[in-house]
Amino acid sequence: MILLLNGPNLNLLGTREPQIYGSTTLKDLEDACQNWARALELKLECKQSNHEGQLIDWIHQAREEKIKGIIINPGGYTHTSVALRDAIAGVGIPTIEVHISNVHARESFRHHSYIAPVCLGSIVGLGIEGYHAALLKFSVVVSS
Amino acid sequence: MILLLNGPNLNLLGTREPQIYGSTTLKDLEDACQNWARALELKLECKQSNHEGQLIDWIHQAREEKIKGIIINPGGYTHTSVALRDAIAGVGIPTIEVHISNVHARESFRHHSYIAPVCLGSIVGLGIEGYHAALLKFSVVVSS
Amino acid sequence: MILLLNGPNLNLLGTREPQIYGSTTLKDLEDACQNWARALELKLECKQSNHEGQLIDWIHQAREEKIKGIIINPGGYTHTSVALRDAIAGVGIPTIEVHISNVHARESFRHHSYIAPVCLGSIVGLGIEGYHAALLKFSVVVSS
Amino acid sequence: MILLLNGPNLNLLGTREPQIYGSTTLKDLEDACQNWARALELKLECKQSNHEGQLIDWIHQAREEKIKGIIINPGGYTHTSVALRDAIAGVGIPTIEVHISNVHARESFRHHSYIAPVCLGSIVGLGIEGYHAALLKFSVVVSS
Amino acid sequence: MILLLNGPNLNLLGTREPQIYGSTTLKDLEDACQNWARALELKLECKQSNHEGQLIDWIHQAREEKIKGIIINPGGYTHTSVALRDAIAGVGIPTIEVHISNVHARESFRHHSYIAPVCLGSIVGLGIEGYHAALLKFSVVVSS
Amino acid sequence: MILLLNGPNLNLLGTREPQIYGSTTLKDLEDACQNWARALELKLECKQSNHEGQLIDWIHQAREEKIKGIIINPGGYTHTSVALRDAIAGVGIPTIEVHISNVHARESFRHHSYIAPVCLGSIVGLGIEGYHAALLKFSVVVSS
Amino acid sequence: MILLLNGPNLNLLGTREPQIYGSTTLKDLEDACQNWARALELKLECKQSNHEGQLIDWIHQAREEKIKGIIINPGGYTHTSVALRDAIAGVGIPTIEVHISNVHARESFRHHSYIAPVCLGSIVGLGIEGYHAALLKFSVVVSS
Amino acid sequence: MILLLNGPNLNLLGTREPQIYGSTTLKDLEDACQNWARALELKLECKQSNHEGQLIDWIHQAREEKIKGIIINPGGYTHTSVALRDAIAGVGIPTIEVHISNVHARESFRHHSYIAPVCLGSIVGLGIEGYHAALLKFSVVVSS
Amino acid sequence: MILLLNGPNLNLLGTREPQIYGSTTLKDLEDACQNWARALELKLECKQSNHEGQLIDWIHQAREEKIKGIIINPGGYTHTSVALRDAIAGVGIPTIEVHISNVHARESFRHHSYIAPVCLGSIVGLGIEGYHAALLKFSVVVSS
Amino acid sequence: MILLLNGPNLNLLGTREPQIYGSTTLKDLEDACQNWARALELKLECKQSNHEGQLIDWIHQAREEKIKGIIINPGGYTHTSVALRDAIAGVGIPTIEVHISNVHARESFRHHSYIAPVCLGSIVGLGIEGYHAALLKFSVVVSS
Amino acid sequence: MILLLNGPNLNLLGTREPQIYGSTTLKDLEDACQNWARALELKLECKQSNHEGQLIDWIHQAREEKIKGIIINPGGYTHTSVALRDAIAGVGIPTIEVHISNVHARESFRHHSYIAPVCLGSIVGLGIEGYHAALLKFSVVVSS
Amino acid sequence: MILLLNGPNLNLLGTREPQIYGSTTLKDLEDACQNWARALELKLECKQSNHEGQLIDWIHQAREEKIKGIIINPGGYTHTSVALRDAIAGVGIPTIEVHISNVHARESFRHHSYIAPVCLGSIVGLGIEGYHAALLKFSVVVSS
Repeated sequence: MILLLNGPNLNLLGTREPQIYGSTTLKDLEDACQNWARALELKLECKQSNHEGQLIDWIHQAREEKIKGIIINPGGYTHTSVALRDAIAGVGIPTIEVHISNVHARESFRHHSYIAPVCLGSIVGLGIEGYHAALLKFSVVVSS
Repeated sequence: MILLLNGPNLNLLGTREPQIYGSTTLKDLEDACQNWARALELKLECKQSNHEGQLIDWIHQAREEKIKGIIINPGGYTHTSVALRDAIAGVGIPTIEVHISNVHARESFRHHSYIAPVCLGSIVGLGIEGYHAALLKFSVVVSS
Repeated sequence: MILLLNGPNLNLLGTREPQIYGSTTLKDLEDACQNWARALELKLECKQSNHEGQLIDWIHQAREEKIKGIIINPGGYTHTSVALRDAIAGVGIPTIEVHISNVHARESFRHHSYIAPVCLGSIVGLGIEGYHAALLKFSVVVSS
Repeated sequence: MILLLNGPNLNLLGTREPQIYGSTTLKDLEDACQNWARALELKLECKQSNHEGQLIDWIHQAREEKIKGIIINPGGYTHTSVALRDAIAGVGIPTIEVHISNVHARESFRHHSYIAPVCLGSIVGLGIEGYHAALLKFSVVVSS
Repeated sequence: MILLLNGPNLNLLGTREPQIYGSTTLKDLEDACQNWARALELKLECKQSNHEGQLIDWIHQAREEKIKGIIINPGGYTHTSVALRDAIAGVGIPTIEVHISNVHARESFRHHSYIAPVCLGSIVGLGIEGYHAALLKFSVVVSS
Repeated sequence: MILLLNGPNLNLLGTREPQIYGSTTLKDLEDACQNWARALELKLECKQSNHEGQLIDWIHQAREEKIKGIIINPGGYTHTSVALRDAIAGVGIPTIEVHISNVHARESFRHHSYIAPVCLGSIVGLGIEGYHAALLKFSVVVSS
Repeated sequence: MILLLNGPNLNLLGTREPQIYGSTTLKDLEDACQNWARALELKLECKQSNHEGQLIDWIHQAREEKIKGIIINPGGYTHTSVALRDAIAGVGIPTIEVHISNVHARESFRHHSYIAPVCLGSIVGLGIEGYHAALLKFSVVVSS
Repeated sequence: MILLLNGPNLNLLGTREPQIYGSTTLKDLEDACQNWARALELKLECKQSNHEGQLIDWIHQAREEKIKGIIINPGGYTHTSVALRDAIAGVGIPTIEVHISNVHARESFRHHSYIAPVCLGSIVGLGIEGYHAALLKFSVVVSS
Repeated sequence: MILLLNGPNLNLLGTREPQIYGSTTLKDLEDACQNWARALELKLECKQSNHEGQLIDWIHQAREEKIKGIIINPGGYTHTSVALRDAIAGVGIPTIEVHISNVHARESFRHHSYIAPVCLGSIVGLGIEGYHAALLKFSVVVSS
Repeated sequence: MILLLNGPNLNLLGTREPQIYGSTTLKDLEDACQNWARALELKLECKQSNHEGQLIDWIHQAREEKIKGIIINPGGYTHTSVALRDAIAGVGIPTIEVHISNVHARESFRHHSYIAPVCLGSIVGLGIEGYHAALLKFSVVVSS
Repeated sequence: MILLLNGPNLNLLGTREPQIYGSTTLKDLEDACQNWARALELKLECKQSNHEGQLIDWIHQAREEKIKGIIINPGGYTHTSVALRDAIAGVGIPTIEVHISNVHARESFRHHSYIAPVCLGSIVGLGIEGYHAALLKFSVVVSS
Repeated sequence: MILLLNGPNLNLLGTREPQIYGSTTLKDLEDACQNWARALELKLECKQSNHEGQLIDWIHQAREEKIKGIIINPGGYTHTSVALRDAIAGVGIPTIEVHISNVHARESFRHHSYIAPVCLGSIVGLGIEGYHAALLKFSVVVSS
């Protein structure tokens, strides 16, 4: 089982600043991910929250539930949350950070991620295909 | 309808560090705002939370509820919350940031606001009259 | 008596970069302020200069003239003038800083103000209504 | 009554990165603290949350409940939460910050604490004995 | 046609610091990329150079050759080459930056990329699957 | 008509620190500029002041007087005057910044210019020929 | 045997800036520490010097003398002495840093410690009870 | 002849922030300086202005008037005026910077002086005796 | 003989980001420069390379060939190449740095030049007339 | 009694880098100070040490000996010694910092003083007359 | 076999800025190194290039050729080349960095080296004897 | 006569952190240096102290004793002692800084040396052969 966590404001997807994020909604995104997961023979669970503490709680539970990999788009918490970073480092589950837009081409405070150093890696700016790429990686990691 | 959001620790108003914040309670403040709003023929809804995620959720709901303007005192989240900033930018509702005390005369970490750049403007140090000023501005914006 | 000081380049108002400052001229602004002052039963004197030293001289004279409050839009001197700051601190007259545009959404050197820490407070980004808000605050301060 | 607040990820204690945090669980820690408290003739209440807002709410309630001292391990919020700092400063209850590991020997972003300046003091790197030391201090403060 | 450019020291792949880069050689990597490209019905041309100027020349030629997308692992030039950045921005061909290791978990000078802001996006830390992910993205971009 | 503005201390030219500025006086400089202007069929008006406010006033008047281009050597105000910058940006007249000495080879605080970003361009270190070059550019701009 | 080293200016204790350090003298402090040590069945040796080199010499001798733990209040050398840090790291004896006042609530140059990263941990702001806490920790470490 | 230049806000002396500047007025100060000068057999001319450009003009005139030394209290321009610095460096007259209060014990932006590096030296925090000390130095310099 | 060196990406001129660089090609630019040189009775040799090492080699050869002056547009190497700087300083040939666009109005990393401090001066933002201005300067320098 | 403390390397005076420090020896300096002190009816004791700890010890003893004022030239410890600063602040004796050369015109690390903020004031760059000025100040302070 | 790599501008040696680098030519230097090598019974191969990529290629080839040690003077690339650093780290051959002049006494950008951290060590400021010292070290390393 | 000064903690050599410093003791090191000196026909005097002031005193005495060169390993004082730097600059004896380990590969505060800029040069990371290299250099300097 792979866990997909979308963080703050990603519930606005498809309605918020489309010039940056496109018109795909969160529902569309999660459906697409389920399709990609199925094609890669991975099980996927999708969650979204605007609450930092909730995201941390879910990451903790992932260990109980034998989650094999986490895909996380931490939204604005990327740049401000040491607690989220500690949660990921703490549970020891392989995690991939995804950002839909190219954060490196936006405001300078978006260039730094507290999350990236405790992840396997990061994918930024590839749109929703970034999630596909993360699933692709997990299909290799999990099977190996 | 205008939405008034008071952030973390503003429930302590009137009891906390009176040399900085005065003796008006949150209840007093909200009553005063309702009076000012009535005089300006604006409807006003008042909420307070210490939870960053809750504030974000309310901002998202504001779009559903056809809120015309948001007055927000983000308290300590002013200086640390990219997620709150993204919420305000995401819903596209005109927003005014208010601080009761003069943050520029306090610790240097209070001089920077993640929220201000995505707002119409900011009012700091005017005490509770800062909220009145914000309502005054919305009475012009909304009617124009 | 309240003193309204507009600093450098505000004589260009209404003609300069209208996408940032709107089309109201300095004359329009001062007339509007006189109207708002009258409605609030405040006397108001309006001055403008591009000269830092002139602004300082006027602030010094304000003490002789028993000015009760100063509203100042220090323009570009906001970010560079310790001398202006010292003048305001020196005369001990309650002062409110006003900026028409949202300086926090512009170049980073505009985010810092030497003036704000010695003022009662600051109002930025509310357009000319910012001056109205400052007068509103003084109507409370002066009468209290 | 003393309040012991453990912040984000401390529920993982004993299971997370044992080379840094040891093998004592949160339950073990709280039991040890209760034992130490009893020996020092202090009453102790223990709580843990991963939610910044929840921690703030509990600090506010502590004032209602006549808590005499707070021991807080703010975890990752240490380095990022102005709101938590304001809560501690706001309620005016003597507070001691505790960190199990030596944060000064880890990543540089862990060297700065928003919490420490509003506390009586801080204890870092002493393992769970750090909590004992905090209780010891409160046994002196409370009795004096 | 997609162009794959590997920059300085990637010819050492499989032999250099295997704990960071694994044991796949550049030849293995290029073969794998050709296989992935074929499966995605993309044509792929692979080049490697340790010379900054050579990489720039190839990027310029790509425009002549109607290259539809560039995948570039700029190696050490990522962090130091404005000239390479200008080349990518200059030719206007969609480009994806790939790093095999997680640069965000290494020395701080590797956290900044001159290249990322002028790319579609970046993929870091996914090993050689990062190249697969980039091809996957181009299969969508090119066909759309 | 082109306006040539020389800022603070340029009246000392030819007498001040000749190892940096040479022995040409301000009068010599202005005469040379008039000659160059005539050869390029441009009209030129020359002014000098040590007063920041005076320079701003002249820039404002330039708009009234249908000045087609401004050549400015802002002297020490280059590095400290946001007000001068705003004046140039405000009147919207094409402006070229000139410095006689190579400011980049002097103290580091001279490397930054508030003026340059709102100008067409800057010419530094070419001695008084820098003014000639600016006139040459205006002869092209004005005629085009 | 535990070694207690008090650094520069701690001989002034009880006479220097009592609003920061209280009225306990160095003699009082050392007596209290001897009492606490006895109660914990630890032997304690107390020394004080204003000389950086002397403190380093004593740390070196501690290794000869089979000292089991060092408690050090490095005073002003905390923030400036790499040599002291190297001495502690060099002898490899477990060390705890103690500060009587809360250095994090004072000037910013007191927030950084060269000593902390090579210690077991640090105790700041607990007054002279900080020394008690350090002894308490050593009673556990030494006996384990 | 020695020239004494007092800069912005020093006309407020004796009335402004007496806890920082004492109760001596500018007139008192200038009288005291004349007395000290007479005792040292120096001629002294005293001027004050709030205008940066005026101070620069006076410094330029000093060269015409064969002034042997300048004593300058540049007030707020100390920290912001490159133009004033260039004027002093330009005329080549020995200059001593004086500050009445201890600027190093005030806000950090007052710790830096653009003026000091081009002066003989600086005297800060000695109250009005600082001017006496400067005259004393000039009595040696001028006579030597 | 004057040497004109165009650095990386200037071969794209006229085709690359025309809103920044205009539509003149490198060929057009070199032809214009030859015309200007002839009019000024200067001989001119024009070269372009994307290779830092090649540019350095050409600068070294310039000394052999008795080149009297170098005009260099170092492109992206401006901001990153100490080696190029050392080459210019090493050969001791008067050099003028030229940038077509106004680098001071672009990204902040373009504001710093390693090259400028070892040149006679710099010309930025004047378009291709910047090269003309450099030739104009050399016509004075060389003949003097 | 006034105490004159000269710090590290001042025993080299008159022999070390005469272009910076002149040819007066430490003996000459102390003799001159004794003469100036006598003329001002002050008693003076002169000491010099290269040892930071020794200087601190002497400052502590000064309190025992009822020293009324300290003149200190802390040499290189100015910029590096928090312990010396704490000693001065701790004994509470009025202190004046003196530097013979103009530290503000030398390397940037000499611009900052740990000592100045805890002194009455500082005198820099006046040569040995700086000590005279300090004595002059104490003659006023002590008699008042 | 030891490889001696001289980087950019070292071919100018003996002709370039002799006050910094002396009058020894590259040929002289290489001959001296061959003599020293022979005396130490080491074989030595000498190369020089101004091209970063060429230096990297040679370092890669060194592994093929069983080179036992590299002596590199990376010239200006010292401060700017991550690619060169990665090459040295990648081949795993012991390397010593040499600089003829004392880079620590020159511009601040020369104080940082990307190369030093991946070398055995660095020798700066010893003139050409620095190369001798490096060979001396390799005679010990290689023989041990 | 050459003077070898070893600074703080070097008396621990061979016993302290052998993975960094090896197993050679200070006695071994001094013996080796005497042997190398003899072979180079140099006289050598060896001293070690943990006291900054002692090291300064010895440097001063070196001038009396006609020392021809100083080899100094300043240990931790390298990074913190302006006084030591001033001593070396003050006596004017050629000095070479030596560090046994590669300070550039350790904590960032070890990358900066106050000592290096006033030395002939520095040798870091060559182990005890670094001292040999320094002697080698002095054998050339002294004989020339």
